[in-house]
Amino acid sequence: MVGEHAVYNGKIILQSEAVIPVTLREVQSGFYVYESLRVIQAHPVHLDDHLLRLENSANLIHLEYPFSREEIATWVHALIEVDLVERSSLRIQIYGGGQPQLFITTSKILTYPDSFYTDGVKALTYEGERLFPGAKTGNLLLNYLAMEEARRQGCFEALLVDGGQNILEGTRSNFFAIKDGRIYTAHDEKVLLGITRDRVLKAANQLGLQVIYNTPSVNQVSTGFYDELFISATSMAAMPVSQVNGKVVGKTFPFTREISSLVRQWELED
Amino acid sequence: MVGEHAVYNGKIILQSEAVIPVTLREVQSGFYVYESLRVIQAHPVHLDDHLLRLENSANLIHLEYPFSREEIATWVHALIEVDLVERSSLRIQIYGGGQPQLFITTSKILTYPDSFYTDGVKALTYEGERLFPGAKTGNLLLNYLAMEEARRQGCFEALLVDGGQNILEGTRSNFFAIKDGRIYTAHDEKVLLGITRDRVLKAANQLGLQVIYNTPSVNQVSTGFYDELFISATSMAAMPVSQVNGKVVGKTFPFTREISSLVRQWELED
Repeated sequence: MVGEHAVYNGKIILQSEAVIPVTLREVQSGFYVYESLRVIQAHPVHLDDHLLRLENSANLIHLEYPFSREEIATWVHALIEVDLVERSSLRIQIYGGGQPQLFITTSKILTYPDSFYTDGVKALTYEGERLFPGAKTGNLLLNYLAMEEARRQGCFEALLVDGGQNILEGTRSNFFAIKDGRIYTAHDEKVLLGITRDRVLKAANQLGLQVIYNTPSVNQVSTGFYDELFISATSMAAMPVSQVNGKVVGKTFPFTREISSLVRQWELED
Repeated sequence: MVGEHAVYNGKIILQSEAVIPVTLREVQSGFYVYESLRVIQAHPVHLDDHLLRLENSANLIHLEYPFSREEIATWVHALIEVDLVERSSLRIQIYGGGQPQLFITTSKILTYPDSFYTDGVKALTYEGERLFPGAKTGNLLLNYLAMEEARRQGCFEALLVDGGQNILEGTRSNFFAIKDGRIYTAHDEKVLLGITRDRVLKAANQLGLQVIYNTPSVNQVSTGFYDELFISATSMAAMPVSQVNGKVVGKTFPFTREISSLVRQWELED
């Protein structure tokens, strides 16, 4: 059953025992790296990509751990097997410090109603830049607070805006804008290199869109300058955005929906 | 015995049981506020100030909890009593979210050799600004990484430098510079309102120093422009800085040492 067991440093434990001391400095400081992925038909989707990014995140913040990608992959498969997991979200999380601690946990898979994909979702903009854009770390308070603000305002996502009033990414997603056969997104160095983002760009390419690494501005986005806006994440594939800061910015999303279905199709072929 | 028990939501537990689930979003996101204080002669020093600041930190990040200052104070005293604590560091930490979780834990008191106060300590500068300067939250990865870099280079503290090349504060301290009868420190809004910082400014005033809220620049600090540099924190009182980025910036610290002894004296009178 999903969420029954977990992995701790290679050993299967009960997930209820996946706890850490509040007194540990690394826990207090968010000195950890993580990955979230999907298990579909008992298969951990794009696992190799996630394990590579986990390593990159760790390198960026000088977090050292003694677990190889091969070992972690073995433990992921062991957990899927022991809990007979068919579909789930799966999280790999490694705390650094003197005694690195690796946890693998599963939870009910995140899915969204079909109407989100046909009608689009609401978003707001929120000022703030992530500390290490390229790394998935425990430095998540900005993302948490931006997302809470989004929820208070009935929005699905908060889009993070830099000092130059450009939209870089969402709190848990990458951000894209389409206009006149071109797709715009932030430059690689400024955002998290999403594994779904890679697939989105590949799909866009396949659909004949030209990829431009240029960051859409808040002004352009909220005045309806673009044909389509969407966000991408492992759990979302490509999710159309219909409103930004209360203004309608899109009603139909033909490219977004084609990109989304290509991304989902490739998951099954992984 | 220090560190034997802890408080969890008002109940005395074993400190080894002061753990939190790695699966909780608030834990993963560092959505918590905290205070560190000193217990001296079984008395929690400046507890009221710390509890007030805890509340302010929580307000700044919209973290709500159902514990009053009076209740928390009662629990602090209960913990000191059950473990017969004479001297210790004590940490109050509250995770937010749907089910707020409060922990109070104690650990061996942080003290430093006398030579640190007579000879001064080494520091380096590190670029980066804290997200919510006025709040003590779990958003500590910058502080952690800056401090790790300081340790690698044999330094006692890392001084955080903003985009304008000014020194705002240390990773776990406030920062001060003295020259020609004036003491310089960052403006209130830019830094953590240290409880020891308050006492430092009061002591400086008593010693006839004029307080100037102006941030010393990296250039001024590392070229020996000031008569004395020091950092302040609950655990340090006022700690003189003798070197910045490998350059000697001070050898005697008459004001710093007088300030430090006033701060320590007031602790005993609390």
